[in-house]
Amino acid sequence: MAKLWGGRFTKGTDKAVEDFTSSIAFDQRMYAEDIAGSKAHAKMLAKQGIISQADCDAIVEGLTAIREQIESGSFDFSVALEDIHMNIEKRLTDAIGEAGGRLHTGRSRNDQCAVDLHMLVRKEVVHMATLLVDMQKAILEVASKYEDVIMPGYTHLQRAQPVLFSHHMMAYFSMMQRDFERLPLVFTHADSMPLGAGALAGSTYGIDQSYTQQLLGFSSIYENSMDAVSDRDYVVEFLSFASLCMMHLSRLSEELILWSTTEFGFIELDDAHCTGSSIMPQKKNPDVCELVRGKTGRIYGHLLGLLTTLKGLPLTYNKDMQEDKEGIFDAIDTVHFGLSINAAMLRGMKVNGKRMHDVLADDFSNATDMADYLAKKGVPFREAHEIVGAAVQHCIQNHCVLLDLTVEDFKAISPHFEADILDAITIESCVKGRNNYSGTAPECVARQRQVGQVVIHREEAQIQEWLRIIQQVEP
Amino acid sequence: MAKLWGGRFTKGTDKAVEDFTSSIAFDQRMYAEDIAGSKAHAKMLAKQGIISQADCDAIVEGLTAIREQIESGSFDFSVALEDIHMNIEKRLTDAIGEAGGRLHTGRSRNDQCAVDLHMLVRKEVVHMATLLVDMQKAILEVASKYEDVIMPGYTHLQRAQPVLFSHHMMAYFSMMQRDFERLPLVFTHADSMPLGAGALAGSTYGIDQSYTQQLLGFSSIYENSMDAVSDRDYVVEFLSFASLCMMHLSRLSEELILWSTTEFGFIELDDAHCTGSSIMPQKKNPDVCELVRGKTGRIYGHLLGLLTTLKGLPLTYNKDMQEDKEGIFDAIDTVHFGLSINAAMLRGMKVNGKRMHDVLADDFSNATDMADYLAKKGVPFREAHEIVGAAVQHCIQNHCVLLDLTVEDFKAISPHFEADILDAITIESCVKGRNNYSGTAPECVARQRQVGQVVIHREEAQIQEWLRIIQQVEP
Amino acid sequence: MAKLWGGRFTKGTDKAVEDFTSSIAFDQRMYAEDIAGSKAHAKMLAKQGIISQADCDAIVEGLTAIREQIESGSFDFSVALEDIHMNIEKRLTDAIGEAGGRLHTGRSRNDQCAVDLHMLVRKEVVHMATLLVDMQKAILEVASKYEDVIMPGYTHLQRAQPVLFSHHMMAYFSMMQRDFERLPLVFTHADSMPLGAGALAGSTYGIDQSYTQQLLGFSSIYENSMDAVSDRDYVVEFLSFASLCMMHLSRLSEELILWSTTEFGFIELDDAHCTGSSIMPQKKNPDVCELVRGKTGRIYGHLLGLLTTLKGLPLTYNKDMQEDKEGIFDAIDTVHFGLSINAAMLRGMKVNGKRMHDVLADDFSNATDMADYLAKKGVPFREAHEIVGAAVQHCIQNHCVLLDLTVEDFKAISPHFEADILDAITIESCVKGRNNYSGTAPECVARQRQVGQVVIHREEAQIQEWLRIIQQVEP
Amino acid sequence: MAKLWGGRFTKGTDKAVEDFTSSIAFDQRMYAEDIAGSKAHAKMLAKQGIISQADCDAIVEGLTAIREQIESGSFDFSVALEDIHMNIEKRLTDAIGEAGGRLHTGRSRNDQCAVDLHMLVRKEVVHMATLLVDMQKAILEVASKYEDVIMPGYTHLQRAQPVLFSHHMMAYFSMMQRDFERLPLVFTHADSMPLGAGALAGSTYGIDQSYTQQLLGFSSIYENSMDAVSDRDYVVEFLSFASLCMMHLSRLSEELILWSTTEFGFIELDDAHCTGSSIMPQKKNPDVCELVRGKTGRIYGHLLGLLTTLKGLPLTYNKDMQEDKEGIFDAIDTVHFGLSINAAMLRGMKVNGKRMHDVLADDFSNATDMADYLAKKGVPFREAHEIVGAAVQHCIQNHCVLLDLTVEDFKAISPHFEADILDAITIESCVKGRNNYSGTAPECVARQRQVGQVVIHREEAQIQEWLRIIQQVEP
Repeated sequence: MAKLWGGRFTKGTDKAVEDFTSSIAFDQRMYAEDIAGSKAHAKMLAKQGIISQADCDAIVEGLTAIREQIESGSFDFSVALEDIHMNIEKRLTDAIGEAGGRLHTGRSRNDQCAVDLHMLVRKEVVHMATLLVDMQKAILEVASKYEDVIMPGYTHLQRAQPVLFSHHMMAYFSMMQRDFERLPLVFTHADSMPLGAGALAGSTYGIDQSYTQQLLGFSSIYENSMDAVSDRDYVVEFLSFASLCMMHLSRLSEELILWSTTEFGFIELDDAHCTGSSIMPQKKNPDVCELVRGKTGRIYGHLLGLLTTLKGLPLTYNKDMQEDKEGIFDAIDTVHFGLSINAAMLRGMKVNGKRMHDVLADDFSNATDMADYLAKKGVPFREAHEIVGAAVQHCIQNHCVLLDLTVEDFKAISPHFEADILDAITIESCVKGRNNYSGTAPECVARQRQVGQVVIHREEAQIQEWLRIIQQVEP
Repeated sequence: MAKLWGGRFTKGTDKAVEDFTSSIAFDQRMYAEDIAGSKAHAKMLAKQGIISQADCDAIVEGLTAIREQIESGSFDFSVALEDIHMNIEKRLTDAIGEAGGRLHTGRSRNDQCAVDLHMLVRKEVVHMATLLVDMQKAILEVASKYEDVIMPGYTHLQRAQPVLFSHHMMAYFSMMQRDFERLPLVFTHADSMPLGAGALAGSTYGIDQSYTQQLLGFSSIYENSMDAVSDRDYVVEFLSFASLCMMHLSRLSEELILWSTTEFGFIELDDAHCTGSSIMPQKKNPDVCELVRGKTGRIYGHLLGLLTTLKGLPLTYNKDMQEDKEGIFDAIDTVHFGLSINAAMLRGMKVNGKRMHDVLADDFSNATDMADYLAKKGVPFREAHEIVGAAVQHCIQNHCVLLDLTVEDFKAISPHFEADILDAITIESCVKGRNNYSGTAPECVARQRQVGQVVIHREEAQIQEWLRIIQQVEP
Repeated sequence: MAKLWGGRFTKGTDKAVEDFTSSIAFDQRMYAEDIAGSKAHAKMLAKQGIISQADCDAIVEGLTAIREQIESGSFDFSVALEDIHMNIEKRLTDAIGEAGGRLHTGRSRNDQCAVDLHMLVRKEVVHMATLLVDMQKAILEVASKYEDVIMPGYTHLQRAQPVLFSHHMMAYFSMMQRDFERLPLVFTHADSMPLGAGALAGSTYGIDQSYTQQLLGFSSIYENSMDAVSDRDYVVEFLSFASLCMMHLSRLSEELILWSTTEFGFIELDDAHCTGSSIMPQKKNPDVCELVRGKTGRIYGHLLGLLTTLKGLPLTYNKDMQEDKEGIFDAIDTVHFGLSINAAMLRGMKVNGKRMHDVLADDFSNATDMADYLAKKGVPFREAHEIVGAAVQHCIQNHCVLLDLTVEDFKAISPHFEADILDAITIESCVKGRNNYSGTAPECVARQRQVGQVVIHREEAQIQEWLRIIQQVEP
Repeated sequence: MAKLWGGRFTKGTDKAVEDFTSSIAFDQRMYAEDIAGSKAHAKMLAKQGIISQADCDAIVEGLTAIREQIESGSFDFSVALEDIHMNIEKRLTDAIGEAGGRLHTGRSRNDQCAVDLHMLVRKEVVHMATLLVDMQKAILEVASKYEDVIMPGYTHLQRAQPVLFSHHMMAYFSMMQRDFERLPLVFTHADSMPLGAGALAGSTYGIDQSYTQQLLGFSSIYENSMDAVSDRDYVVEFLSFASLCMMHLSRLSEELILWSTTEFGFIELDDAHCTGSSIMPQKKNPDVCELVRGKTGRIYGHLLGLLTTLKGLPLTYNKDMQEDKEGIFDAIDTVHFGLSINAAMLRGMKVNGKRMHDVLADDFSNATDMADYLAKKGVPFREAHEIVGAAVQHCIQNHCVLLDLTVEDFKAISPHFEADILDAITIESCVKGRNNYSGTAPECVARQRQVGQVVIHREEAQIQEWLRIIQQVEP
């Protein structure tokens, strides 16, 4: 097939250019959006009298047939036809003749390509939202299943204070909640229709953008045609979402890896989420966690890559912008994997609450509570801190922990100590005592879990609303 | 002053470590937030009976005095005291004695540091919003001032179709609007109070987080204390905002640079926004545009840097996170400069509408309209495109443009041409004809400008609402 | 086929994990290296008496057959077999039985995978070197073809001083030369053999690393087995090379795009390297340049992605490191395209020397020479600069250029001017006068071009030396 | 002082622009290079008769005085004078009058700025080299001090096989060695003189670049003046070096953090390299390691930032390139801190060899050796792996380890086991058995340490050679 723009040219395109600029290998992913967009455009053209109803019918019927071919695997994509748009249009023209040539009236590849990507991103936002909700449910499940388990809380990866395991887990719930909260703006920006922008300046055919908007279920139309074809903000925003989400998952992965070590021994991942070694028979490696952590770098790379590509581009469309797709497609797949596999891992893992409790009995995680005890007796906190620090130092040298000390020992350390000190610094007391709103006390974490249920209901309602919008599109 | 944590240690800190881990050089920027946060904490402690009212009064008074010293320039910051928090606390204790030591009861540096940064980011969101609105006003002003000017529209930096200069400008209005739309979520996430999280697990003192929330005007409290001290999402979100905003400004900068070249000659920047050369007397360089474009890389670097720093960190606080501040502080200053100077540049520049019109009269920007003409006469667009492509090729070889052809020439090209072809492809016709919703026709751009005014009103109302929230904080 | 590490496991791998951790889609690119590495390993095992000669012969023969199947397209890669290593080993075992199972004696996937990638990178360094040399030859060709053409030289994209077009081109020669200079270290680091490191600590079988080194033509062996399996520096170094090379090409692309605009009009790219528009018949877009410029962001993304992935990984091998391949494979293909297509573009483009000369006749690029004239008469340069600046300002207001002034006009500007001023500031004088070593005068650029030939000879000798090393490997 | 380029301008610079484009706050770091460069330029001008010897003497004397003022702290830097170059030149002119104005003859800020940065980078390469050598010495010291200590070797952070602690440490020696190997090319590219390039095209004054080259001790001159002023490759190369070096340090930091946990308990860092908590008296946090790990992100950000800034810039100088300095200055300081503090940490830490040995006695790190034992008896490795995997599974269920089994137990597992199996899988045997070139056996690690000494000698010789080059510059 001749190029669509050959008239002004005296020579064909370099084969290497054709091969390298061809995007069909990855943009075929947008076939459904491309077909839906073309059908809507054709119907609008007919409604406005720009093409005949007969042409419109032939186009719509032809496109439906092509969609079926693609979905049944019988469509043969051609590299020489550059992209998904040309692959479909060429097949259409072959099938229905001259009417196919009229489909491109009043639009350009610039706005066609943009509208396809908008529809795809809109759809993938909902996909991501659904995965996030399931991940949050998995977190709630493990938080519920192990609600009484106490574990060491860490700062600087040093034991800090005892916390509920469920409290620790619910921190990830909050992260996923923020990830979800980033999606509405991505959806809104994706849910604005560029179609009708033409190459950059609009169209002379008397097109009706409101009508295509309605057929494609877009909530708004780009105010400005030049912006419509040059804007890739929504792709960057999706990649920003993906980067933060992967960052959160990388932190969880790091913790699952640590907790799975022989040294920590806090959890055991399911065999289904680990792999072995070809050489070391004893190995059970948390590969999946490592892969999620590792792939975080890749997603950052996609974000930075696209930002860099867009930097300093004059308006409106420049070919550089073809680089918008591969990164987001890979990000979609990677976040999909990251969220779904982590939900499965949480559900499948065994938590060794006894081990966690044992290690706490053998450390200084209750030192703050000992200082707090003194402070409550009127010792300025800075001084109490100093006293307890010395006590810890003393215990380290004598290979014991604070709970090994007697009431007399405590009194020797400071006259402010009384008999109740021993009860005040048990592991359970440490946890129960931190009962302010966001604290780790059982009733506080129970409250968090209840709030979490409410959050999920709200998120699911949001997803339903989005689905309603998307489902306005005729396939 | 002795370190606050010396009791357990047998040896002082390496001097090199002290120097390099000291953050006072940049975090003194948060002095106002640190003082406001400490006052609120003290008042809450008093209300809860954790400290005496007399201690509270001494603390509040002492902190007010310190704020005055800092603002009058008489406060001497010390590197050895590590950070703004210790600088202020040490001074307070020197001034009011033991009561100062009680201020730290029930909080830790982890949540203190977090609450300061939250308050600062919340404030800077409003700062950015204000700058964006002014930039949008500047765009509306130039769009209004030069509303009738027609310029070449470009794709691939090749002349594409004539557009209104104001249409081109309004594309940037839309970009700034999306930048603004990113701010509410950053504000919301910054507007959640971490204070009360303690080191990670909450507090045993019976603190009242609702009361500090009220005193500091936060709209919510972190649900989970571990999340509260380990979350830096709001900083990443601010940097994502800054990256996209700078990306937009880099595109505008590129265009201003291009338009200022001798070759384009479309605008002349004000002398105040250009610099010369120490060696070439004729030079007038668009330095400011180049600097804004160049600094875009730096902001991307801050974004990537922080994302990388956060990747794979186990909960909760790790010292790596001290890296959260310098990047955002620099981003605030850079975006401030970028937005304010671009607003000034737009207002100060001269647009050479005559030059733009002259170059259009000498090019093929009207070729699409010639093809559209044929398509409207029933020629399939793909065929019309081919015919016009050949006509352009003919003109190039004969050193003329389409408007130099006679009606007879047109008829020789295609029998579909009639006498009205000459009117159909004037520059003015090309612009007027693209009158769909988002098109470049004068009435469409006028509509955009009206919508722009509405947008600005809405944004200003949002800013007022934010100010109301922020101003609840007692300084 | 059962996993190679199933014994310790009670359950199979999650299907989603299997699909997502499978790397066969991209690592099949290393089939030749994997086979060569396995053959060498087998021969060493036989030489050391670890396996029998008969087993060795069967293995070598079996691997040769597999290589032929792959190269003829009859090999059916399996996703379930995870990676190229397992695909080949499984097929081998199917074909030759138990002997195939002995091939993995004394090595692990960790060092097998590492040795494959080392060999591939070593080969690709030579590939890149060859492309760089051809690009440099193309630069020399255009520099020679248009050796007398004078063009405006720019700083800040403002006309600065006239330069030879060939001088401008030779700046890119220097950039490519530095790119080449980065390759030897990448080669050296790739040319060190990790095989024999086993999983991390070496092998208990009495293997002879010197012998495999010799068979695989490596110039050195990793000193430390733990480093051998955890090191990916050479991949980062390759990506750093690729990033800088693409950065250079992005600058050239930007210039070709600018020079191809109607506004500049300095060059015309060959039709084979441009594409048109589906809607605007007059368009001839420098797509290829834009794509190269755009893909620069992608390569930066790969570099940053891998650096981020490697950050903070404990020794030795972690699954995160599987992320080492896709980025470098894509970088290889992208730089290949960038260099080869730019060489072709330079050779195919037409340079419009007349246009360049015409624009120079109409600007102030000779202002420095006017100031230099005064300075040579003893006027302090800063003062001369001031005088010429005022003269330029005067000309701008009177719509003329400096060469339009008469000797009398010059004398009125400053008494230091004499009749020879007119000759001193012609375009040709400006160029000829800058005749210091690195200057733009014709004899200086001729010298550069001669040096360029010498550089190319040196580079070609280097390539020959590398080929000699690589060709020691038996396929 | 009036701007140096005011003649053509009718209006002063916007104050905000002046403040924001001023670089004196950070580029004053280059004062010594700027003064040395100016002296050399002045001497060359005098030698060529372009300025008088008297002027030259006045300039040299004036610059020497300024250097002394700066070094004694009595020089008052001015923001309004933009940069270090103008600060010095203004002071010089104030001091010596008209002769000062002649210093700028035959050069521009473009090549002046470039030569300063070249000299600084050249110097800092040597600085980095020196730090690397000291770090390598520290590694050798700990490897020697704890040469017999055996520790668990890890892959996937799971125990894999026992290794010598010194073997583990020497892996970092190799990384530092590769970091060093990256420096020569950075030095070479920094050690090329741009001076004489003028604004972009060279100079008309008859300057002698060979003479300034000699005075400034540069090993080469840029071949091409346009390249000379537009090249920042050497800065990117330095940042690439810094990124890789920090990546290595981040890995070491991660391990030191892990080993310092209560869970691992392998080492104890010196108090001088840890900090405590303001609230938790027991805490001893490895802050320094965390900070080094965290700052890695920042250095990556600098690298990405500069690459992004340079992308797509047309030749030659653009103001964007002012962004070249802050990143590299910060990278220098950060790498300085990272290397020097890690050397100190290694020297100061206590290694708990007993703990390492104890944990090995209680795990399955010897499973590979059990499989190797079988393989050596003729069992295909894949089968041996399966057998040992099952044995491990059996032990896990029975809460024992392999060494707890009796010879009879072993024989029950496989008839190939004989009495010598118990000796074959002791921790010591596992280490001794891996005695191939790069393996962990004591004699192999001893060899590595000897090679390490040779490497250090070679590196020190390189440093001496570099110092000889640099010391040619007269201050």
